[in-house]
Amino acid sequence: MTTLLLGIGSWDPEPWRERFQAVLPGWKVVLPGEIFDRRAVRYGAAWKQPEGTFADLPLLDAIFSLGAGVDHLFKDKRLPEGVPVVRVVDPDLTTRMSEYVVMHCLMALRRVRVYDGFQREKQWIDLRDQPQASDIRVGLLGMGVLGQDSAMKLRTMGFQVAGWSRRPKAVEGVEMHHGADGLDAIVAGSDILVAMMPLTPDTAGILDAKLFARMPKAEAIGGPVLINVGRGGLQNEADILAALDSGQLGAAVLDVFQTEPLPADSPLWTHPKVTVTPHNSAISSPPAIAAYVAQQIRTHMAGGDLVNIVDPAHGY
Amino acid sequence: MTTLLLGIGSWDPEPWRERFQAVLPGWKVVLPGEIFDRRAVRYGAAWKQPEGTFADLPLLDAIFSLGAGVDHLFKDKRLPEGVPVVRVVDPDLTTRMSEYVVMHCLMALRRVRVYDGFQREKQWIDLRDQPQASDIRVGLLGMGVLGQDSAMKLRTMGFQVAGWSRRPKAVEGVEMHHGADGLDAIVAGSDILVAMMPLTPDTAGILDAKLFARMPKAEAIGGPVLINVGRGGLQNEADILAALDSGQLGAAVLDVFQTEPLPADSPLWTHPKVTVTPHNSAISSPPAIAAYVAQQIRTHMAGGDLVNIVDPAHGY
Repeated sequence: MTTLLLGIGSWDPEPWRERFQAVLPGWKVVLPGEIFDRRAVRYGAAWKQPEGTFADLPLLDAIFSLGAGVDHLFKDKRLPEGVPVVRVVDPDLTTRMSEYVVMHCLMALRRVRVYDGFQREKQWIDLRDQPQASDIRVGLLGMGVLGQDSAMKLRTMGFQVAGWSRRPKAVEGVEMHHGADGLDAIVAGSDILVAMMPLTPDTAGILDAKLFARMPKAEAIGGPVLINVGRGGLQNEADILAALDSGQLGAAVLDVFQTEPLPADSPLWTHPKVTVTPHNSAISSPPAIAAYVAQQIRTHMAGGDLVNIVDPAHGY
Repeated sequence: MTTLLLGIGSWDPEPWRERFQAVLPGWKVVLPGEIFDRRAVRYGAAWKQPEGTFADLPLLDAIFSLGAGVDHLFKDKRLPEGVPVVRVVDPDLTTRMSEYVVMHCLMALRRVRVYDGFQREKQWIDLRDQPQASDIRVGLLGMGVLGQDSAMKLRTMGFQVAGWSRRPKAVEGVEMHHGADGLDAIVAGSDILVAMMPLTPDTAGILDAKLFARMPKAEAIGGPVLINVGRGGLQNEADILAALDSGQLGAAVLDVFQTEPLPADSPLWTHPKVTVTPHNSAISSPPAIAAYVAQQIRTHMAGGDLVNIVDPAHGY
């Protein structure tokens, strides 16, 4: 029986099995520890799979990542070469990411944390010199499907939006930058910087003291704001804390961390200028993802092309 | 010399005088206590003017409100009859109002206050069953320029949007209701209710226990949410507190209050489910307003029509 192998390392795999069973009637859906015919496995789906999950599967056609990122998949040294790895880019996930990004840009603009403090002190204080969205420049690092959707929605809210991608790219209404020089330019011109790019050897640790030092003063919103919804590996947390304390950064909104869950002794938890969320900026809705993967499998088996195949040389 | 009379009761009038002087060169800009030729006053501009400011001005052509609301103007028992009162609806104010409304709808959707609590307790908790914007129904009470702009932006973010107006009105992509029956319908179908309507005898105290009892359970966001950016006189604060405590309301975001500034002994300040802001959801940018008023005056003096004239029978 045609088989899908689910390599899931950090979630309960059973609800995923049920979902895939529902969208792939007539298929067998198996987990790594079980007994199954390895020659019947045509597709894999993975989130932090146990090492070697996808080795020795002679007829494996493709592996789907169950989230937007794929760095977890490539950590597996026994990942078979030549088998396409496919990213899930479902509209559901994109919508949720934009909710989070637009919301936190608005919260920075409208100084929600400052007004929360006034409320705690029962102080009726209006800061008065409130900039409007069009005064504030948001720089998006990473301009794939997620970045472009956030850019469109931020523009609707009135923000100035710039984007940065590795390769040159044009996006309507967005000032685009690319490459290393482009990174310097967008950082220097962004009151709010949103990291949405994949974690690759080139981007690891890119959110560091050197980068924060290049950001503008952004006095209108109490200092420049860093939002990281990409990967914890993009950021140097010691540098973030130092930049917040020196005033180089005005605030940080972090959904991802070098170690997750964020350890209880991390000073990020209690820093007054840090917002911590538990890597849920863009929660993958399991039913939507299963449906998306099943649709791709059906297209592929009917002779069509897979979309969003990862280029292993670039890691996304 | 053609004269503008500035009737300002609660702000420092001098910066306003300077702004109007800048946009109306050759005019005289005067304040109520000063000595001036009452027959030279062609226009008035007001924010909570002292009683009688605009009486005995035989050639007064119009009075402009310096904010979106005009209820403060009509409190003046000596306001001259038959002189048009004009609301300022500048794009700047509209943009700011939408920033606030969209931000607080997103904050309700994404449970920011709940996650803030988790952060305070250093708890890495993901609530999981996160609805997306398209699962949540936002009802806007008041569908003038401000309501329509918020509706468009909420739709872009993915929310379901309904609107209510006194008279029948059609707005693209928005389920519209009107009149008393329509109010029941929109309240019963709104997970988040945003009060943006003017304060009139018909709307005074409309946000009360009876209305809260008709709201849906809205369990996906922890109970229905009330956002009031209209006027404090729309709400019954004792009823809001009771509804929050009984669980009938999940949260309240209040920018306006029955008494402003909100008195220090109000329990709203410290209620864990209440967000208090100091009537700054849509701050009027003084230069933008002065420019808008000057433009209207020039048009009117050249024989053109004033726009956004208030209907005294309806109070907006």
